[in-house]
Amino acid sequence: MRATVIYGAGDVRVETVPDPKLLEPTDAIVSVVRSCICGSDLWPYASMKRSERGRRIGHEFLGLVEETGADVTTVGKGDLVVAPFVFSDNTCQYCQEGLHTSCEHGGNWGTKDVDGGQGEAVRVPQADGTLVKLPHTEDDDLLASYLTLSDVFSTGHHCATTAGVNERKTVTVIGDGAVGLSAVLAAKRLGAEQIFLMGRHQARTDLGREFGATDVVAERGEEGIAKVLELTSGQGTHTVLECVGTKPAFEMGLGVVRAGGTLSRVGVPQYEEGPIGPALFRRNVTITGGVAPARHYIPELLVDVLDGKYQPGKVFDRTIGLEAVPEGYRAMADREALKVLVK
Amino acid sequence: MRATVIYGAGDVRVETVPDPKLLEPTDAIVSVVRSCICGSDLWPYASMKRSERGRRIGHEFLGLVEETGADVTTVGKGDLVVAPFVFSDNTCQYCQEGLHTSCEHGGNWGTKDVDGGQGEAVRVPQADGTLVKLPHTEDDDLLASYLTLSDVFSTGHHCATTAGVNERKTVTVIGDGAVGLSAVLAAKRLGAEQIFLMGRHQARTDLGREFGATDVVAERGEEGIAKVLELTSGQGTHTVLECVGTKPAFEMGLGVVRAGGTLSRVGVPQYEEGPIGPALFRRNVTITGGVAPARHYIPELLVDVLDGKYQPGKVFDRTIGLEAVPEGYRAMADREALKVLVK
Repeated sequence: MRATVIYGAGDVRVETVPDPKLLEPTDAIVSVVRSCICGSDLWPYASMKRSERGRRIGHEFLGLVEETGADVTTVGKGDLVVAPFVFSDNTCQYCQEGLHTSCEHGGNWGTKDVDGGQGEAVRVPQADGTLVKLPHTEDDDLLASYLTLSDVFSTGHHCATTAGVNERKTVTVIGDGAVGLSAVLAAKRLGAEQIFLMGRHQARTDLGREFGATDVVAERGEEGIAKVLELTSGQGTHTVLECVGTKPAFEMGLGVVRAGGTLSRVGVPQYEEGPIGPALFRRNVTITGGVAPARHYIPELLVDVLDGKYQPGKVFDRTIGLEAVPEGYRAMADREALKVLVK
Repeated sequence: MRATVIYGAGDVRVETVPDPKLLEPTDAIVSVVRSCICGSDLWPYASMKRSERGRRIGHEFLGLVEETGADVTTVGKGDLVVAPFVFSDNTCQYCQEGLHTSCEHGGNWGTKDVDGGQGEAVRVPQADGTLVKLPHTEDDDLLASYLTLSDVFSTGHHCATTAGVNERKTVTVIGDGAVGLSAVLAAKRLGAEQIFLMGRHQARTDLGREFGATDVVAERGEEGIAKVLELTSGQGTHTVLECVGTKPAFEMGLGVVRAGGTLSRVGVPQYEEGPIGPALFRRNVTITGGVAPARHYIPELLVDVLDGKYQPGKVFDRTIGLEAVPEGYRAMADREALKVLVK
């Protein structure tokens, strides 16, 4: 089959690789109907050390079940399914607590014997615990929204949920990438009435407004902080959804969070140490968030996506075929595209 | 009157200072019946830069109301009252949310025109918002327990509460100082059934066991982490109550917190930057805590102290008179005394 392999910074290729096959009785093989490129794929695209063998990439996909192992009971051939961005057994203690990203038998796509999502098909370990069945559809928009459950909408929801967003809390979302916009939508869904979106790309912040942002703050750093404080009587917002992952974004978040408030991070931190000294302590600010257990959230979010009430798939602004994936990376890295769907 | 003044590291004196007087109609004058020395007083005692004028010190006290300003309505002459370790109006937005430490009209003891607690009397600003009336008693043990509401028991409770301790959560308490032991008691009070106390001073950890610790871990650093992991099937505990404030204590806390768990800090951080990078993020660990809004917790905790159900005053293992305060500092700094009561 054809699948995407990354060999180093800037070097993504679509190649012929071995077809996946069942290795364990708990496996399924899924042929990919939709996949996409993630903001987090851009980190290795920017900085991965050159590798002779390369590695498979892509962790968001939905598709049709082609084959299942003997122990798989919840999905079968022909089912349309979505996979969260990590696999999990859905039965261990962590999964039962809703923390599928810490599953005792879980793991990542694009690792040994486990295909990446940006390809024609994927061997799915722990199929019962991982895959969630979807109503069949050929509607492109609905398929796009389905696909966001795999990562980006679930991640935005994780950010808003762990931050404790509700109808009484003010919200700042940092970042106008697909996760930031998804976090706006998630905050709106949880009832937030005042959502500041910090971002400077107008096409993106326009979608942010459509998703529920009440104010857009284009300024960054100290100026951005001053602007949010000015809009909140000098207090900042109860919750901050940090959807970038850089240290300046985190620091800006600390500058706009209200005393007693919560900053939740869902952008993978690109720093080891952060400013969590006495200033933070005196203000009783909570730092939370992390890798989103998408599997835990999919059933709940799917209901609202099926309703048509929320259309998180609008974050995709470009659709390409599998062979064009390298061009998709380039477009996202150059900020020509917000998020690229692979059909 | 006589009061304590600190002039620099190791230089604490009891001196004659001006008697406090009412400056605002919202003030009260309280004559101090009991005060004490806090672990946090030991930071300036260890490192304060020499000052010619010195500054007043002490932030935990209870006493009798001697005089009140015209606007004070909730306490009157002769009332026995406890003061939390910061003053507050109890009416602003932050106070209404229970975050009295961020009060818009609040402040610290031992600052301009506001006496420190380690003296004969104190001018109390915002008396209605700050002071909590106590049933009169001459019982030394009950007075000692009352006094812990001012800071140490309320701080332990803040730590346990913000960490989310309940009957389903395992707990690690880091530090066998008075706050650490109070945190053990607070965790027990909130229903925790498994409480690991990390500390190495047996007289203190014995009191920790009496307060509810189920296991004592004397090892520190990597060995301490290994021990707690061994006792928790390699997972760590759901909550970590970090009651020291040093970076090694914080790092040890991160080593013993379970994925999806919460580390709460109530020891003032003696560091500016901390390790909150990808490792923490991948495990969805929450960092919370801060300066405890004692005023918010006093009414609730007082009920259980009056009951005799909890005796947090047991953290005091030495009682001295006001003139002996300098010796009290020395004894606490040298770890001869756990916490010194001033009578």
